[in-house]
Amino acid sequence: MEKFQSDVVIAGIGQTHVGERWEASLRKLAAEAILSALKDSNGLRPGVIYVGNMLAGSASRQANLGALIAEDVGLNGVEGVTVEAADASGGAALRMAYMAVLSGAVDVALAVGVEKATDIIGSDFEAFITQMLDADFEAAQGLTPISLANLLFYRYLHEYSAAHTSFAGFPEIAHANAASNPYAMFQSPLREGVYQAQAAKDEQALTMYDIAPFADGAAAVLVTRGDKLPGGFSHPPVRVIGSSLVTDSLSIHDRHTPLVWDAARISIERACRGAGIMPKDLDFFEVHDATSLHAAISLEMAGFASIGEGWTLAKPEMIGLNGQIPVATFGGLKARGHPLGATGLYQAVEAVLQLRGEAGMNQVPDARLGLIQNLGGMASTAVAHVLSR
Amino acid sequence: MEKFQSDVVIAGIGQTHVGERWEASLRKLAAEAILSALKDSNGLRPGVIYVGNMLAGSASRQANLGALIAEDVGLNGVEGVTVEAADASGGAALRMAYMAVLSGAVDVALAVGVEKATDIIGSDFEAFITQMLDADFEAAQGLTPISLANLLFYRYLHEYSAAHTSFAGFPEIAHANAASNPYAMFQSPLREGVYQAQAAKDEQALTMYDIAPFADGAAAVLVTRGDKLPGGFSHPPVRVIGSSLVTDSLSIHDRHTPLVWDAARISIERACRGAGIMPKDLDFFEVHDATSLHAAISLEMAGFASIGEGWTLAKPEMIGLNGQIPVATFGGLKARGHPLGATGLYQAVEAVLQLRGEAGMNQVPDARLGLIQNLGGMASTAVAHVLSR
Repeated sequence: MEKFQSDVVIAGIGQTHVGERWEASLRKLAAEAILSALKDSNGLRPGVIYVGNMLAGSASRQANLGALIAEDVGLNGVEGVTVEAADASGGAALRMAYMAVLSGAVDVALAVGVEKATDIIGSDFEAFITQMLDADFEAAQGLTPISLANLLFYRYLHEYSAAHTSFAGFPEIAHANAASNPYAMFQSPLREGVYQAQAAKDEQALTMYDIAPFADGAAAVLVTRGDKLPGGFSHPPVRVIGSSLVTDSLSIHDRHTPLVWDAARISIERACRGAGIMPKDLDFFEVHDATSLHAAISLEMAGFASIGEGWTLAKPEMIGLNGQIPVATFGGLKARGHPLGATGLYQAVEAVLQLRGEAGMNQVPDARLGLIQNLGGMASTAVAHVLSR
Repeated sequence: MEKFQSDVVIAGIGQTHVGERWEASLRKLAAEAILSALKDSNGLRPGVIYVGNMLAGSASRQANLGALIAEDVGLNGVEGVTVEAADASGGAALRMAYMAVLSGAVDVALAVGVEKATDIIGSDFEAFITQMLDADFEAAQGLTPISLANLLFYRYLHEYSAAHTSFAGFPEIAHANAASNPYAMFQSPLREGVYQAQAAKDEQALTMYDIAPFADGAAAVLVTRGDKLPGGFSHPPVRVIGSSLVTDSLSIHDRHTPLVWDAARISIERACRGAGIMPKDLDFFEVHDATSLHAAISLEMAGFASIGEGWTLAKPEMIGLNGQIPVATFGGLKARGHPLGATGLYQAVEAVLQLRGEAGMNQVPDARLGLIQNLGGMASTAVAHVLSR
């Protein structure tokens, strides 16, 4: 929670194509995103690199990514560490960059999220992904993030008398937006009726159309102060006016109710309060739609719907690009893809494109204020940032 | 590199016994250190927790330690993330805490290092530890941190015409200091002559007497501003007057010479410059003695010896508690033990004890200025802090 509005800006963005990037190594993905961001900034040189990553130790047997990536992009010697908070690692890295610039210790900070998730074979993959849950009390019982989300979805439908088919708008709008995002994993709309048909068959369980694909990818942003922008910087600078990171218990059983995600709610409240705005002032919301359930609950936690009514927003007039509160404007986790520790920085890059007015066919009309929220585990970590044109 | 001296202080310390802690889980170790630090501070409550850890994902299948540990110690909801830079993770977490307080975003930051390294079986252990090297260019050739250190040691002896037996003072002094440290893994002196006998046999290779034991443990410090100290705080506050984190290539073959560790050198130069002091002003140096070679090179990089002459300091009158520049005052990595991501915070806790004058039998007389340096991999990451009474 910040006590003052700052002059911190994002002045450089880069991203790679999301997907099964078997041809690209971890360092190659990171370098591609970083070099794009450096070029986009027209001459900034970071004094520190924060790497958002969840799986490199487990899946690539590689620690110390800060040093690895700094050297690989020709920034030899600069400060660099990995920041990890499960699939909120990217958002957490952005927050570190923000705080580093605020502290005055550096003028320019680079936050890069990178993940190689698809080279892992079979049961190892479930074990690696399940690191985001509580190893002693959840994973030990056989839960995985998807099976846990399924249990919660079942409960949600029961508690709030919602029908599975009512969630169709979340993936349908995400896929429609991803169709014009050249970096997205799935650049095609969902065919009409496929969600409904599958949801009618699996009335009480999330289907593949509800669940974001884990993927490879990297995204990067350069954070600096407004007075440090390079001379030839040709984009409208985008200010970071609110920032918050809040934790909750890892285990769902330790919460007062499983369908109210306090960290998601509080992080947005604090980021908005820091920014001096109300959620209703926002022009769009990059939501952490790891599943359709995540989308519904996140909209409730942000205050765009009452508890138990998030699913009623799953319509183009509400969350489409021209709707009341557009979400997943470049496809979200569901259709752009979910490269775990990189996801939070894809959200940041996409929000910057919106606020610069450079979002092309994905542009939210007259976007001036955007919220991005990145969740780790079942919202055990929640990171929220408010960005402003 | 800071531009100004700050009023950042360490006002709470805690540590656990280092060793093979098979009876204690990751969260239990962290909680023990944190609760000690909270008690020691007499009432501080952190707004953020930075967890220094290297192996939890690989070895314990547990990510998101920030959220996990926050809840486990009753700090539900506070900001929390993992900071990773191989075995410099603890030092990196301390630096994050320092910058968070500097930024004004929080009044109190907690840095905790925790590692569970000894539950791992057989060849998995080498693979996990080797994550600190370059997976693609070093580990893929069969190198491990110890085998690489051995190659460098062989080269060092050749280049500088040093004898293996000349390094005896490093472990002997470390063990002598650990004998009166109740938290140390090895609380006994080395028997006279054992190092020499083994070194005479293995003239050109590091022996078990040269290599710090990987271990379990946790250590924590509370960082705040001088004006936020609680009323009843009964210790002399210790100021953080210099802080720096510098990277170098992961692969040794990418450096201009393998025996000059630029990151180690530059991080100390910057931390001392930020503090407005020269290394000769320091009263002690908590060195990252992962091997005897590390101790020798670190002393050279800090400027206490010329290049190639660090080994000449391995004598009580130079580095003993009453020597010119005491090192490893509570046993160092070699005898206190090396709990990887926790090591940098053990160094901080030990330095605070020295500067408070609470080091008991390990007290460096009239200690006013201390340097701590934590290295990640073969000094691919180097973190240096200058602390002052």
